[in-house]
Amino acid sequence: MMSRPAVHPVEAPPMTNDAEIPRVRMKDFQGMPGTLGGLFLRMCQFAFAVISLSVMATTSDFPSVTAFSIMCFSYLVAAVSLQCLWSLLLAIADIYALSVRRSLRNVGVISLFTIGDGVTSTLTFAAACASAGITVLISNDVDKCNVNHCTRFMSATAMAFLSWFTVSPSFFLNFWSLASR
Amino acid sequence: MMSRPAVHPVEAPPMTNDAEIPRVRMKDFQGMPGTLGGLFLRMCQFAFAVISLSVMATTSDFPSVTAFSIMCFSYLVAAVSLQCLWSLLLAIADIYALSVRRSLRNVGVISLFTIGDGVTSTLTFAAACASAGITVLISNDVDKCNVNHCTRFMSATAMAFLSWFTVSPSFFLNFWSLASR
Repeated sequence: MMSRPAVHPVEAPPMTNDAEIPRVRMKDFQGMPGTLGGLFLRMCQFAFAVISLSVMATTSDFPSVTAFSIMCFSYLVAAVSLQCLWSLLLAIADIYALSVRRSLRNVGVISLFTIGDGVTSTLTFAAACASAGITVLISNDVDKCNVNHCTRFMSATAMAFLSWFTVSPSFFLNFWSLASR
Repeated sequence: MMSRPAVHPVEAPPMTNDAEIPRVRMKDFQGMPGTLGGLFLRMCQFAFAVISLSVMATTSDFPSVTAFSIMCFSYLVAAVSLQCLWSLLLAIADIYALSVRRSLRNVGVISLFTIGDGVTSTLTFAAACASAGITVLISNDVDKCNVNHCTRFMSATAMAFLSWFTVSPSFFLNFWSLASR
């Protein structure tokens, strides 16, 4: 909102030409792409996903787990790997934007980030929920926990949940900045 | 973007006074609250949630299902019931808005709708994922399907997924109209 003189002697000021001058309706809000907060969020997502992945990867033996559990945990590993890659990529983009002081406010770029965040967070959340259900079922009722390293599965699941939890703010901030342009 | 004459003889046109006149940046987009599309979405959510709930409710006996499965399916029933109530409430609000031709475009109302949609859809999705994992585990591996009515559990889970799938557009449209005000 700029204050303008109410009376113009000859012509309207050039800033009324909305089509040419991009209007910035929102400040660089911490957490959006290209800010330090955004970089911090990406780092958290990446860290949690990497921990989850490494916990699953170092569990080499799945002796008495049923075939479907293995399928489900493989899906968890796949979803968390994707999350890992995506967060790393966007962290690099954030570092680049911060170092050259460029703003990542292109509509196409923000759309891409939003869609990617939505897809990866949905996949991670679904994998974490399904794994949580199966892990608790195996550990509580069927009682195979000594052989199945249930603690490992549980911590991997918890890390996947934490990763999803840190992707959500990125997604909402991207979506918000896309809608409020 | 309105075309204006480039030369004003005396004063600027009054529509430049952004603070007083609320600008409508987006038309009534089908699917938003208070539109026929929004009512249709709510009806779909409600229908799928009710089908899921009634399938679970008519399964009176859980003979050989383990304690944790019962807990998980109870959570599914709770999440789907909440979804049911919420969608019914908002369908009534839509019908009211359509019948008196009022627009539901208050910031507070839209915020409430967005938060409610976000919470119910997350709960429904989590319940559906966990139930899907457990149902497939029970039916495939532990092989108790004849006694456990696995088909019923599966259809209830599928309906919960469909309900989540129809809540998502409502949520995104609400969030979008909140951000683009």
